[in-house]
Amino acid sequence: MPAFERHVFVCQNTRPADAPRPSCTADGKSELHAQLQQYANAAGLGDRVRINKAGCLDQCEHGPTVVVYPEAVWYGNVQASDAAEIVSEHLAGGRPVERLRLAEGCINTKACPHRR
Amino acid sequence: MPAFERHVFVCQNTRPADAPRPSCTADGKSELHAQLQQYANAAGLGDRVRINKAGCLDQCEHGPTVVVYPEAVWYGNVQASDAAEIVSEHLAGGRPVERLRLAEGCINTKACPHRR
Repeated sequence: MPAFERHVFVCQNTRPADAPRPSCTADGKSELHAQLQQYANAAGLGDRVRINKAGCLDQCEHGPTVVVYPEAVWYGNVQASDAAEIVSEHLAGGRPVERLRLAEGCINTKACPHRR
Repeated sequence: MPAFERHVFVCQNTRPADAPRPSCTADGKSELHAQLQQYANAAGLGDRVRINKAGCLDQCEHGPTVVVYPEAVWYGNVQASDAAEIVSEHLAGGRPVERLRLAEGCINTKACPHRR
């Protein structure tokens, strides 16, 4: 296996409550990360897909955010309850979960209308 | 800009000194991350390339490790002094730094000969 088939990064960033941009986790703990890992393992993807913790992914207005490489699919407002669908549809099935995808006009741009 | 042109993940993982696998940072602080960020900004890549902190990338025997997506280029034993070359050659120039690349037989496999 030359590389992970898919590498999933789950933002764990925490800011003070009065910071100008929001946080993806309240305290650096992420039930979302744990659930993704659990479902990926249960689906037999443990060796082919890595569910990684990440620092700030810079899409803070849409958190909790997740990015899946190598396809660079960005998800926003992802809840732990979305983990099963992300694993079965995207990580196992190869079909990104459209309802969770960030709009193109929001990704990596200060012009995102949700950014103050 | 629909996605980062390149997204660089720098392992920040720290384990206790007596853990069976080694750590990528002594204390979760990474001069490597700071240097990559600084050189990337200086090269005018700030908006196109993101230098991200990451939790354990699971290539612990080859740390500090870095992975660059979307091309999934893995680097091992990366020092802060390598940051300038990674930025100028790979992130700006599109030419991965061959001397730092992990061997294919070492990436994401328990059969890696360096893994105890």
